[in-house]
Amino acid sequence: MSKPLILVSNDDGISSRGIRVLVELMSQIGEVIVVAPDSPQSGMGHAITVGNTLRLDKTDIFGSVSAYKCSGTPADCVKLAKHHLLKSGKPDLVVSGINHGSNTSISVLYSGTMSAAIEGAIEGLPAVGFSLCDYSSEADFSHVGEYVKKIAQEILTRGLPKGVALNVNIPPKQHENIKGIKVCRQARAKWEEHFDVRRDPTGRKYFWMTGNFVNFDKGEDNDEWVIANNYVSVVPCQYDLTAHHAISILNDEWEF
Amino acid sequence: MSKPLILVSNDDGISSRGIRVLVELMSQIGEVIVVAPDSPQSGMGHAITVGNTLRLDKTDIFGSVSAYKCSGTPADCVKLAKHHLLKSGKPDLVVSGINHGSNTSISVLYSGTMSAAIEGAIEGLPAVGFSLCDYSSEADFSHVGEYVKKIAQEILTRGLPKGVALNVNIPPKQHENIKGIKVCRQARAKWEEHFDVRRDPTGRKYFWMTGNFVNFDKGEDNDEWVIANNYVSVVPCQYDLTAHHAISILNDEWEF
Repeated sequence: MSKPLILVSNDDGISSRGIRVLVELMSQIGEVIVVAPDSPQSGMGHAITVGNTLRLDKTDIFGSVSAYKCSGTPADCVKLAKHHLLKSGKPDLVVSGINHGSNTSISVLYSGTMSAAIEGAIEGLPAVGFSLCDYSSEADFSHVGEYVKKIAQEILTRGLPKGVALNVNIPPKQHENIKGIKVCRQARAKWEEHFDVRRDPTGRKYFWMTGNFVNFDKGEDNDEWVIANNYVSVVPCQYDLTAHHAISILNDEWEF
Repeated sequence: MSKPLILVSNDDGISSRGIRVLVELMSQIGEVIVVAPDSPQSGMGHAITVGNTLRLDKTDIFGSVSAYKCSGTPADCVKLAKHHLLKSGKPDLVVSGINHGSNTSISVLYSGTMSAAIEGAIEGLPAVGFSLCDYSSEADFSHVGEYVKKIAQEILTRGLPKGVALNVNIPPKQHENIKGIKVCRQARAKWEEHFDVRRDPTGRKYFWMTGNFVNFDKGEDNDEWVIANNYVSVVPCQYDLTAHHAISILNDEWEF
């Protein structure tokens, strides 16, 4: 039986530690091709490159593993892999990450990591994004392998419902004794932004966006609760933004 | 009674024709504040500016209407308006657009126009994104006023369900006799990309992303059908990406 073909991407850029860990893990279970941004693309959401050109260059950064760096966004990387590099075949699995930092709750919308996975799902491919809930540049990835490989294997064995990509968040290493994996929903929460106003050397104002994460969710079936209670969170995600419950409300109450 | 405060943004940039039309229309029903990107941000999806600074400068581009141009994305613009410029109050309505080109179906994910509206919904504000289904730089906006004002007024009068933003697409002027407004869902469709490979003057390869829109949806209750049949489409959108139907599938079938 031939090895599964696994497409690896991320949003922290091809030279980040997280993608190196992911490439090593995926090489243990399949044939890997990497197409990842040539520079950090955190917070890029589901951006694509419109009205501008793209570069795609082969790199030996991962030794014998086939790898390409791309000037575009994570979603661009998946599109280029699927429609240009792999025209004749298609990957059996799209994996993205491992992100340096959490992508729980509302952050899934802003996450470049998850946009690569969701782009995979749009293309009809089984897909998953992995994030480590540790923003430190020194973050310890040594505990993630067990969960990342288990989830990737499970997807390869059982497949995923059509149009679904998984958003996986892993507690930091410091939280010893991770209790297991829990499937859950996206927590209701948001970022409460604060803008730090500064002056550049010419006296002109500029801003740094900072913010606090505010969790409104009192439930226990959401990714924030799951991570806080030391489980790996798995949220199945889809890309139909329709608020189906609101259609009948608008049809009943509105006067067009 | 005081006039409602309306925040206007877009993704084509503050100097585009579409936002000028929207500012004129909204000035007829409320007090307007504009915070929009200083350059085109099409295809930016729900990107935000992370690890970089932001600029925000007052401009008199709309005469007496209060307006600011921002170096960031559409989502950044709404965050800056809500958490910096309007700290003490909050807009009664967030409107985005009018986009030059359609944002139906899967394009809602890639759309900067809709990310501004959805960011409004995340902030708990009634919000709507408007798009004209005409990509021409000469596009005729003369027929949109009736629908844009009607929908904005309806939102101000009745509100929107919590966490919902409307995605409104308007047929092009050439389609005479628009039949009315239909509330519907996002069509199942995708872009089938093609990459046009070229060489720069130094001989290095670069790519242009192009593509064909492929509609899989056989229904009549979706935005593609609605636009093709000459109605204005209104899709209520939300930002919970959880594939709720998939949670029980994963819990039943997977072995963690």
